[in-house]
Amino acid sequence: MAAPLVHHRHPEFRELFARVQENLRYVFQTSERVVTLVSSGTGAMEACIVNLLSAGDTIITVNGGKFGARWGEIARQYGVPVVELKVPWGEAVQPVRILEALQNHPGVKAVYLTHSETSTGAATDLQAISATVHEHSDALVCVDGITSVGAHELRFDAWGIDACVTGSQKGLMIPPGLAFVALSQKARAAMERATLPRFYFDLRRALAAAETNDTPWTPAIALVAALDLALAHMKEEGMDRIWERHKRLALGLRAGIEALGLRLFSDSPSYAVTPVWLPEGMSWKHFQSALKTENGVTIAGGQGEFTGRIFRIAHLGYFDELDMVAVVAALERALARCGYVVEPGRGVAAVQRTLMVP
Amino acid sequence: MAAPLVHHRHPEFRELFARVQENLRYVFQTSERVVTLVSSGTGAMEACIVNLLSAGDTIITVNGGKFGARWGEIARQYGVPVVELKVPWGEAVQPVRILEALQNHPGVKAVYLTHSETSTGAATDLQAISATVHEHSDALVCVDGITSVGAHELRFDAWGIDACVTGSQKGLMIPPGLAFVALSQKARAAMERATLPRFYFDLRRALAAAETNDTPWTPAIALVAALDLALAHMKEEGMDRIWERHKRLALGLRAGIEALGLRLFSDSPSYAVTPVWLPEGMSWKHFQSALKTENGVTIAGGQGEFTGRIFRIAHLGYFDELDMVAVVAALERALARCGYVVEPGRGVAAVQRTLMVP
Repeated sequence: MAAPLVHHRHPEFRELFARVQENLRYVFQTSERVVTLVSSGTGAMEACIVNLLSAGDTIITVNGGKFGARWGEIARQYGVPVVELKVPWGEAVQPVRILEALQNHPGVKAVYLTHSETSTGAATDLQAISATVHEHSDALVCVDGITSVGAHELRFDAWGIDACVTGSQKGLMIPPGLAFVALSQKARAAMERATLPRFYFDLRRALAAAETNDTPWTPAIALVAALDLALAHMKEEGMDRIWERHKRLALGLRAGIEALGLRLFSDSPSYAVTPVWLPEGMSWKHFQSALKTENGVTIAGGQGEFTGRIFRIAHLGYFDELDMVAVVAALERALARCGYVVEPGRGVAAVQRTLMVP
Repeated sequence: MAAPLVHHRHPEFRELFARVQENLRYVFQTSERVVTLVSSGTGAMEACIVNLLSAGDTIITVNGGKFGARWGEIARQYGVPVVELKVPWGEAVQPVRILEALQNHPGVKAVYLTHSETSTGAATDLQAISATVHEHSDALVCVDGITSVGAHELRFDAWGIDACVTGSQKGLMIPPGLAFVALSQKARAAMERATLPRFYFDLRRALAAAETNDTPWTPAIALVAALDLALAHMKEEGMDRIWERHKRLALGLRAGIEALGLRLFSDSPSYAVTPVWLPEGMSWKHFQSALKTENGVTIAGGQGEFTGRIFRIAHLGYFDELDMVAVVAALERALARCGYVVEPGRGVAAVQRTLMVP
């Protein structure tokens, strides 16, 4: 990333970007194009609204957390009517609720889902829901894969996903600043008909430029160069093994957390992030500070109504099994410092017992 | 940029971003807020359309090159009627033409200008035009400062600019991926009334978050960290000296180019980029390749109808006087290689004569 920049209109960049584009297809498990944008993941979500819809289209969204709510917020900004399915935080939407909504609202243009809801740690059964949508309607299946691509099993083509978004700083392991959108042929056809206004996020321009390994606007060159290396690592490890590693890490971590008597927040947990109830009466600020200043470990707090009540441990990207041992060791220390009764080593031993099985 | 990332919701990032925000005010010469976006400069231009206008508003744009045309393209995407003043490529718009347009179209909401038109190298007299607009109308003055901020004299407050955009990879000297918008109080008031749809580029969210040195969406942390260092350098050099340096570099380079018998493309040249007519009959590809592969020098070609007819030399950001000597030395060599009669040393001597005067 700190190497001298290649100019983005010169052949060296084209060559690098061709490789990046090819490897992105592999990560998304698709033979379709994956567009690269300079934005946060939210920008790519907006691209999936403005490029696929027209005034008067109705969509279904699932609001089971902060990020699921965002699909609806964006759509309403553009005057798109939203059938919003509310799901309690920490739970995943069931396919039958999507089916009911499709039956109650025939003609729905697209269903917007969140694969791994970062605010609650809940994972959605994308494969089952996508099958339901396609069996019973003509709607597009659009997915926020921001904390799932490169962590959770996600097969864009095989599962019939029409649009899937991710960001650079999660499963792809590089700093934030790039976002990505994979698009099916059906989504591309919808894009040609869509009338919502767009310019910077106009995916028709991005797709046209991508044909010659170019971008319509100046790309974030240093990040694309970093991505090239990250994707090479991912290709070497292989998607099946990456997904399996994330699952193992999540299960190992959770064994440690439960051994400490802590309670998991979600019944349908993602393999990318593990949210945990903070012990009754414990100050989040005190706990976070003990983790950070005394142990050098950074974790996230709760969001929305769960601020100060849960904490969230990320384990997507470049984490390994020893990281899970280390984070549980830090939890033991920080919990003890905050007055929670801990038997030293109980959590880490549970992680070891779970993960030392091949 | 390659240092370990600070998490963007943690105090260390807030402290860094507070410093960045303060120093951006200095660079724009404003006491107002300068918003930081993750996008190319085009995204920030779109932000200046969708945040300041409502359906039914009419604007004036100046199309004297590819980037001046872009203001109109964005506005038309959002259904905004555009009074477009066409200016021959390489020329700058005169204040009297803006005045006429304002008189012919009373009630115009905003005038969108390009300070340094990168495609042609022409610089606009922003100070004079801004004074004209404010004297004769209530319209906002919105400026594409992408290749001028940090290179050309630009005084946001003193000149009465209402919105000014730049990108990270030009005068600010870091890799592409960030864009910036400075906003006057009058622009902020317009923003509250504006009804065009926006979400990712909603500057109300960015301004609200900026109050606590935060951003609404995940920032490009590595680039913000790099920017922090670049801005510290700029503060140390001082804006007056930065502007003077760019002017000197441009004049030195141009003396060298004219000594070689080449012709400048623009009569009103920017201090950020110098476009030059390619000698009659010379192949741009051959010339570019001689510069790049034999001399390691990267320059840009022409755009639009001037593709293959002009070349453009950038000298904004971290360039010094010896760079101007070196680029003219490379021009001499590449021109000779392409069959143009060159007296070796004539160009570089002219650069030296111009720049060795204190």
